[in-house]
Amino acid sequence: MAIEQIDVDAVREELRRVAAERDPAAARALLRRWPPDDAIAVLDELPADELASVVSLLGDEALAEVLEHANAATAARLIVKLSHAQAADVLEEMAPDDATDVVEELEPAEAEAILVQMDRPEAEAIRELMVYPSETAGGRMTPDFVAVGAGLTVDQALAALRRVAAEAETIYYVYVTDADGRLVGVLSMRDLVLARPGTPVEAVMVRDVVRVRADADQETAARLLADRGLLALPVVDAEEHLLGIITADDAADVLEEEATEDMERLGGSRPLEVPYLLAGPLTLARKRIGWLLLLFVAEAYTGSVLRAFENELQAVVALTFFIPLLIGTGGNTGSQTVTTVIRAMAVGEVQFRDLFRVWVKEVATGLLLGAVLAVAAFARAWTLGVSPNIGLTVATTAGAICLWAATVAAVLPLLLRRLRIDPAVVSAPLITTLVDGTGLVMYFEIARFLLRL
Amino acid sequence: MAIEQIDVDAVREELRRVAAERDPAAARALLRRWPPDDAIAVLDELPADELASVVSLLGDEALAEVLEHANAATAARLIVKLSHAQAADVLEEMAPDDATDVVEELEPAEAEAILVQMDRPEAEAIRELMVYPSETAGGRMTPDFVAVGAGLTVDQALAALRRVAAEAETIYYVYVTDADGRLVGVLSMRDLVLARPGTPVEAVMVRDVVRVRADADQETAARLLADRGLLALPVVDAEEHLLGIITADDAADVLEEEATEDMERLGGSRPLEVPYLLAGPLTLARKRIGWLLLLFVAEAYTGSVLRAFENELQAVVALTFFIPLLIGTGGNTGSQTVTTVIRAMAVGEVQFRDLFRVWVKEVATGLLLGAVLAVAAFARAWTLGVSPNIGLTVATTAGAICLWAATVAAVLPLLLRRLRIDPAVVSAPLITTLVDGTGLVMYFEIARFLLRL
Repeated sequence: MAIEQIDVDAVREELRRVAAERDPAAARALLRRWPPDDAIAVLDELPADELASVVSLLGDEALAEVLEHANAATAARLIVKLSHAQAADVLEEMAPDDATDVVEELEPAEAEAILVQMDRPEAEAIRELMVYPSETAGGRMTPDFVAVGAGLTVDQALAALRRVAAEAETIYYVYVTDADGRLVGVLSMRDLVLARPGTPVEAVMVRDVVRVRADADQETAARLLADRGLLALPVVDAEEHLLGIITADDAADVLEEEATEDMERLGGSRPLEVPYLLAGPLTLARKRIGWLLLLFVAEAYTGSVLRAFENELQAVVALTFFIPLLIGTGGNTGSQTVTTVIRAMAVGEVQFRDLFRVWVKEVATGLLLGAVLAVAAFARAWTLGVSPNIGLTVATTAGAICLWAATVAAVLPLLLRRLRIDPAVVSAPLITTLVDGTGLVMYFEIARFLLRL
Repeated sequence: MAIEQIDVDAVREELRRVAAERDPAAARALLRRWPPDDAIAVLDELPADELASVVSLLGDEALAEVLEHANAATAARLIVKLSHAQAADVLEEMAPDDATDVVEELEPAEAEAILVQMDRPEAEAIRELMVYPSETAGGRMTPDFVAVGAGLTVDQALAALRRVAAEAETIYYVYVTDADGRLVGVLSMRDLVLARPGTPVEAVMVRDVVRVRADADQETAARLLADRGLLALPVVDAEEHLLGIITADDAADVLEEEATEDMERLGGSRPLEVPYLLAGPLTLARKRIGWLLLLFVAEAYTGSVLRAFENELQAVVALTFFIPLLIGTGGNTGSQTVTTVIRAMAVGEVQFRDLFRVWVKEVATGLLLGAVLAVAAFARAWTLGVSPNIGLTVATTAGAICLWAATVAAVLPLLLRRLRIDPAVVSAPLITTLVDGTGLVMYFEIARFLLRL
C-alpha cells in the first residue's frame, strides 16, 4: 500500500494566500499537487463564502477536471455547496459520464434545479445517460466518442477528427459506423497517422471490434477492456448501434470499486457504496447488522451442540479449554481458503467447471495443514497438562477440522455461483460460523470415541 | 462478478480443425474470442507437437499479443514449451515490459538460453528492464515511449512521431526532453493535432508533468495514474532523466494484483503471487501455514484463560454454552470493521491523521451493533433455558465484545501504518484471535461480578 500524508491545514492556508492574491494559475497548480479526492477534502472544509471565491478564482474548467477524477459521492458533496448557477457551469465543463455520476448522487430536486440552469445540449446528454442503470456498461459510458462513416478516406477521417478532437473523451480510437449508425469497424489513431492519405477507411479498419452491450454488467465491460489491454471499449444496443464508449480510466475505477465491494462482502458486511469517511455510524451499522444477526442465529446452534454434550463437558471439563482453539483454527483455515477462491473467481481464474480440481487441491492442502496443526494441538494439550488421551482427541479434531473447513470454503462459493447466487455472499465469517457448529460436533464425537465417554 | 464459461474441449477441437486446414486468419480469430489467460489455457493443454504447429500457424506476432495481455506466470508456462528459437521470436514481438515480466518468471538458465537467441536490441531492452525490482515503477515501465527535443516545432514533432509510431507502446503522449534527456514537458496527441504547424513545441507543452521515480512502489505509480485519469505516466531517475513510461493497462493490472494480495492477506494467508490454478497444494500450504501456526499460538492463550476460570466453569457449566457464540460474534464484528478500514486505507481514503475520527465512528457503530446483539444474546440465553442472571451476563458480554472488537479492528491497522508496518498484515483472523482471548476474560469477569462467583 502507498504511504502518503497531506497536511490539510497547511494546504488551506496556502490556498487562502493564493486566493487573496487572486492568482488563478497558482491556485490551479496548488490543487493539482494532490489526488482529486484530497483536493476536494481541502475545498470541502472551507467556509461557504471562501469556497465561492476560490471556485470562481479556479475557474469552471479547472474545478471540473478535479471533480471528474474524484469519487462521485465526494464530488456531489462539494457541488451542493455551490450556487445552482455555479454548479451548472462546472457540470457543463465535465465529461458527460462523470457529470451524470455526480448528478445521480444528488437529491432529485437539487439535481433538477441544477440541470435546468445548464446549457441545453449538456443537460440533454446527462438526462440521456441517466436512463441507464449505474451498474451497467450504459451507465458508465460517455457519448463523446469519435465516429466516421465507412465511405470516407483516411485523410477525410483525420480532418473530421480534427474538428471534434477538442470535445471528444478519447481520440485514440476512431469508430466506423454505417449509414444507420451501426458499429462496423475501428481505427486506431496510429492506423490513421501511418496510412497513406487516399486510402479508404474500410481498407484499414479492423472489422471484428471488441464491444459490449449497454445492458451488460459494468464489471464485465471493465474486465474485458482490461484483459484486452484496450484504451476504450465501444458500447452498443441490441441492434449494434454505437451508443458510447467506456474509457480505460473509468474501467480502472469500476475494477477498484468492485474489488472494494468484494472485500467488504468477504469481511461479512454489505458494500458501503460511499467513501468510508462519508459513512456515518448509522450507515455502517445498517450495512453490518443484517449479516451479524444472521451469523448470530447460525452460531447460536453451537449453544445447542454444547448443551447436548453437557454430560461429556461435566465429566471432562478440560475438553472446554480447547473449544476456542479448535473452532478458531477451523475458522482461520476456512477464511484463508474462501478468500483465495472467491478472489480467483472474481478475476476469472476459476469457474464452476474447475470445482473438482479446486476441491482436490484444497483437500490436499487441508491434509498438509491439518497434519502440522494436529502436532501443534497435541503439543498445546501437553503444555496444559491434560491427559494424553485428551491430547489425542484434540490433535485428531484439529486435523479433521482443517480438512472440513477447507472443503466447505472451497466448494460452497462455486456451488452458489452454479445456482446463480453471487458467491461473494460467502464471507469469511459465514464459513467460520458454519465450521464452528459442525466442528464442535466432530470434537465431541471424537472425544466420545477416544475417551470412551 | 462476471459469469463466463468457456468450453476448452470444444475450442481445442476447433483449433485442431483450423490447424489442419492451415488457416492462420481463422486460428487468430478463434484465439481472439477469449480473454488471453483462457486462450493460453487452451494452447497449454495441446501436446508438444500440436502446440508447435499451432504456434507457427498463428505467427509470432499474434501469439505475442496474447502473451502480452496474459498473466506473466501463465505466459511463462507456455513459453517454456516452445523451442528456444521459437520462444525468442515471440518475445521479440512482445512489448519489452511484458516480455521482461515473462522472462523473470523463467528459470535463470532457461531465460539466458532464450535471451541469447534473441535479436540484440530486444534482448538488451529486456536485460536493462530486469535491473529494476519487479515491484517498483521501474519494473513496470516500458522503454518504448516517444520523446522529442524541446527545440522542435509541432510539425517536426509530428513527423518524428510518424517515424516511431509503429514501435512505441503509446503515441498518445509525446514527452519533451532537454539535451541531457531530462523530462521538461509533455504534449498530448490532441495538442499536436490541434496546434498550428509552425508553433514551437515549447509553446504548447505542459511543463508541470506528473511523473514518478523509478524506485517508487508500483502501486503508488498505478494509483497516481488512475487518480489523475492518465493514459501513461513517465518514469524518471533521481536526476529527472526520462527512463520509460507506465501505461494505463499496466496500471490496471497492478491495482488488480494489489487488490488480490490485500484480499489474501486479509483472509490470513501470504499472497500467492501466481494464478490460483497454477498453485499446487504445497505452495498453498506454505503460504498459509505461517499465519495459521502464529494464530494457533496466539489462540492457545484462550486455553489458559479457560483453565484459569476452571472453578467458575465447573460451578456454572451453562457458561460454556455461550463461549463460541460470544467470541464468534466478536470475531465477526472485528472482521467487518478491519476489512472496511484496511480497504479504505489501501485506496487512500483513510490515513493516520484520521485515527481519532475512525475510532469515534467505529465506537459509535459498535455501540449500536452491541445494543442489538445484547438483546439477541439475552433472547438466545432465554431459549436455552438458563437463569436470567446468566442471560444478563451473556447480553452484557455480547455488547462489550462488539465494542472491543470494533476498537481493536479500527485502531490497530492505523497504528501499524504509523509504525511503517504494512497494515495488511492485520487480517480478519488476527483480529478474531486477539478478540477471542480478551473476550473470554471479559466474559468471566462479567460473570464473576453478576453471578457473584
